[in-house]
Amino acid sequence: MPKLIIGVMGAGEKATALDIKNAYELGKLIADRGWVLLTGGRKAGVMDAASKGAKASDGLTIGILPGKDTTDISEAVDLAIITDLGNARNNINVLTAKVVIACGMGAGTASEVALAIKNGKKVILLTEDISSKEFFTNLSPENVLIANNARDAIALVRQIVAQSN
Amino acid sequence: MPKLIIGVMGAGEKATALDIKNAYELGKLIADRGWVLLTGGRKAGVMDAASKGAKASDGLTIGILPGKDTTDISEAVDLAIITDLGNARNNINVLTAKVVIACGMGAGTASEVALAIKNGKKVILLTEDISSKEFFTNLSPENVLIANNARDAIALVRQIVAQSN
Amino acid sequence: MPKLIIGVMGAGEKATALDIKNAYELGKLIADRGWVLLTGGRKAGVMDAASKGAKASDGLTIGILPGKDTTDISEAVDLAIITDLGNARNNINVLTAKVVIACGMGAGTASEVALAIKNGKKVILLTEDISSKEFFTNLSPENVLIANNARDAIALVRQIVAQSN
Amino acid sequence: MPKLIIGVMGAGEKATALDIKNAYELGKLIADRGWVLLTGGRKAGVMDAASKGAKASDGLTIGILPGKDTTDISEAVDLAIITDLGNARNNINVLTAKVVIACGMGAGTASEVALAIKNGKKVILLTEDISSKEFFTNLSPENVLIANNARDAIALVRQIVAQSN
Repeated sequence: MPKLIIGVMGAGEKATALDIKNAYELGKLIADRGWVLLTGGRKAGVMDAASKGAKASDGLTIGILPGKDTTDISEAVDLAIITDLGNARNNINVLTAKVVIACGMGAGTASEVALAIKNGKKVILLTEDISSKEFFTNLSPENVLIANNARDAIALVRQIVAQSN
Repeated sequence: MPKLIIGVMGAGEKATALDIKNAYELGKLIADRGWVLLTGGRKAGVMDAASKGAKASDGLTIGILPGKDTTDISEAVDLAIITDLGNARNNINVLTAKVVIACGMGAGTASEVALAIKNGKKVILLTEDISSKEFFTNLSPENVLIANNARDAIALVRQIVAQSN
Repeated sequence: MPKLIIGVMGAGEKATALDIKNAYELGKLIADRGWVLLTGGRKAGVMDAASKGAKASDGLTIGILPGKDTTDISEAVDLAIITDLGNARNNINVLTAKVVIACGMGAGTASEVALAIKNGKKVILLTEDISSKEFFTNLSPENVLIANNARDAIALVRQIVAQSN
Repeated sequence: MPKLIIGVMGAGEKATALDIKNAYELGKLIADRGWVLLTGGRKAGVMDAASKGAKASDGLTIGILPGKDTTDISEAVDLAIITDLGNARNNINVLTAKVVIACGMGAGTASEVALAIKNGKKVILLTEDISSKEFFTNLSPENVLIANNARDAIALVRQIVAQSN
């Protein structure tokens, strides 16, 4: 029986201070519940912060890297999955995660939210970007949920996981 | 010197009547200018209509198929690129097209618009979906352009191509 | 009805003089028959020579590029499919080609021969490398054929195409 | 600092009894040393046996699945990486593993050995298939090593890991 993997997606260099704070807390809460954290694996922004948060609670962290080696990997990633797929690896991120949490918003994150919906996955938006929330909830009311903070997002993950068992 | 390839992205089964009308006209106008048309290749919605439009003007059509064979291919596709990548093939669509035209909106199309922006490609939105236009122009004002009809979209493509030469 | 695409796979920088001579002739013969040529698209070795041969007979040439742009593309490629998949693009090469001709041998070419067999495709070996011929014909006697020269390889392609119609 | 991941590649349904015995022992020895096991993740042949062997020694197991969900996953896989890439996922297998052990031989395994060489990875062959050993050691004497049994293969992995630190 495979372990439950929760994805936290978000910007690298363009992440805001709030995104990074939320990502750290998400990673910590995911690890506290015994879930495995999945991110894009780079040593930047949301990926790095979420992974560090998970390690602060002794969690297990997976990084799905876009390049062909571990250059730029977050030091808090335990398991480096090396894809050499560039942005096509975003589809692996959302397929592998049981639930996807979008922490902040940007072009890469938007592609992951859209791919999650396309693949029928539930995705939780935790962002101050109002137009993304309007667009994606409009696009797929049944798959997109809104969280106001990290604890809220984790509560939604628990509900989704409970319903799918 | 490779030929100029223009991508028309849009929904399959969920395309609206207007999307299909626009897609056909886009395909025709692309072929009229001597450009090559690229779509997702399936025998449905925008992909099929754009390809048929291009063939009506004796254009060349490429289909980037998600599956592992030519099942469900549009009869108007000349060159079937078989990827077996599922939705990860969307990244190939936007990388291969010089300019991407999103005709209508849906989860797959949204992923292509986001991936185009992420890859630094210009993308033209031709859709009645207002919240997608707000979201994507807000996300990347420099890469996202709005067209009101097929002719308008092609005029924008010409400008982009002219500027990049 | 999509056009018939024939793949010619082989080394880039490590191609031998004979490989390059054979590749050019293969490209020319493929174009002479009205088929479309598919290669890995780079400006090197077998890819470049086969594409040039096809253009010498006014053929149409597709290059499936491993990188994220057209850097290093052969000038004889008409249609550049940009994958950003690294070596994972080798699977697209063999899926897209109706028949695969391995011209010479190397690690990349060997991966394409193996992937062709795995995907149930016929593959023709045109190489002086004896141990590759022993290994692959042993691995899949029904899918692997041996050619002694370019004309021989094209005759085998014709037989395979005729049988599959 | 990411954990050390060792890949065991081999046939699914076509694996021999000896391949399966070797795969189980390889998985067990990999876990005994504290390394993480990576396989293709399916509930068949070498993938399943290696994963079971690793779990018998309380190891951690990753499965890189070709499909779009966990259908056919080995029960001994802890972490299911869902790629929906078909055989293109073979490139992720070899990029992610520090060292690749080919246990038995077949078309999929041959593609992984070739891709490992292409990506500059060391690969250890543990197989009765003589022509594959001749071909691949000839193709890349510096990257291909031969093992006579599972313990032998693990000793080679240790040497490679020691040299790369």
